[in-house]
Amino acid sequence: MNTNLEFYFAPKTVSLASHIALEDAGAHYAARQIDFSNVQQRSANYLGLNPKGRVPILATHQGVISETPAILAYIAQAYPDARLAPIDDAFLFAKCQEFNLYLCSTVHVAHAHRVRGSRWADDEMAIVAMQNKVKQNMQECFELIETKMFAGPWVLGENYSICDAYLFTIAQWLAGDGVDIKQFRNIRALDVRMRTRPSVTALAETYSLAPL
Amino acid sequence: MNTNLEFYFAPKTVSLASHIALEDAGAHYAARQIDFSNVQQRSANYLGLNPKGRVPILATHQGVISETPAILAYIAQAYPDARLAPIDDAFLFAKCQEFNLYLCSTVHVAHAHRVRGSRWADDEMAIVAMQNKVKQNMQECFELIETKMFAGPWVLGENYSICDAYLFTIAQWLAGDGVDIKQFRNIRALDVRMRTRPSVTALAETYSLAPL
Repeated sequence: MNTNLEFYFAPKTVSLASHIALEDAGAHYAARQIDFSNVQQRSANYLGLNPKGRVPILATHQGVISETPAILAYIAQAYPDARLAPIDDAFLFAKCQEFNLYLCSTVHVAHAHRVRGSRWADDEMAIVAMQNKVKQNMQECFELIETKMFAGPWVLGENYSICDAYLFTIAQWLAGDGVDIKQFRNIRALDVRMRTRPSVTALAETYSLAPL
Repeated sequence: MNTNLEFYFAPKTVSLASHIALEDAGAHYAARQIDFSNVQQRSANYLGLNPKGRVPILATHQGVISETPAILAYIAQAYPDARLAPIDDAFLFAKCQEFNLYLCSTVHVAHAHRVRGSRWADDEMAIVAMQNKVKQNMQECFELIETKMFAGPWVLGENYSICDAYLFTIAQWLAGDGVDIKQFRNIRALDVRMRTRPSVTALAETYSLAPL
């Protein structure tokens, strides 16, 4: 059991996934909201914690962890009684990580080209061209998840895991990206089911979760 | 100890990182080269193994694993005697994963905008605009790694790990991206040191490693 956990987050960001997992784990933690409107994620204090200037981070008594899949796996390992990932089988754990890595390095990146295009090009027309392809890319990503990667009823099969918290989080971005979640039967059912979990209802207001 | 491992790879891709780790682990595996010139990664057979149509994948007796950080962690966990990651401490393992995730979701993605821009925009001018920013982004990424993320003499400190194989792999792309590795003292030293390891020399020809 960890003590002195501090979770740095911001509403409407991917920090929701790790936040849900902390609630699922029954972790005792202090939630520290970072004010993006004042660019607090680039303040000297915050950069001292995370030189990447991003949320979320989880500050533990051993040090700071960044990157959502690393934070999620840490929570699963630090709170084994919560059974948030198949941590006792190297292959099953790898499949759990594989799913989260697809969300992190492909799906989140695809979405980011709508709202953070300036990371990858300076030209305004190029940024618009990137935005124009986001709907298609997110559609393809979620088709792949729906048809090839989702075991059901949860992402990994019979047991809830950190993958569900992460997929639920990114699925909230679909409407803004112009993709209708209702076409994805499995993912839509997950979205509905997640909202009945205490870990999600506890955070709905903080993250301004849109109604179904 | 795993048996019947098959590793699907392609030269000049990120598969080098996992390939090095398999050699480091002393794993028995069959190496299956995918022919990108014939777009074999999009063949029906290969898509049956990995619907994402990418390399590398590691086929085990339990199933197929994709995504480099997941494969690397699997190798470290499946071959604990090789001590390729701090797998017995949840925090240290998270720090190892955090590093690999930065390479996967930020650095690899930054590089990909030079060679795979069509993933994120259809407009030819936009693709050129993306290419024009790759040098700056890779420079910034490697400055951050060099100054904030590299414990030394190896990435995580005193012990070699899967992070070193991964960083070495992506560092090979710097020259093509217009960034001079020699400005990064720690990473340059890692590049030199890695080339003395049997796991790297065994693969130098297959991957056409450029001389120092």
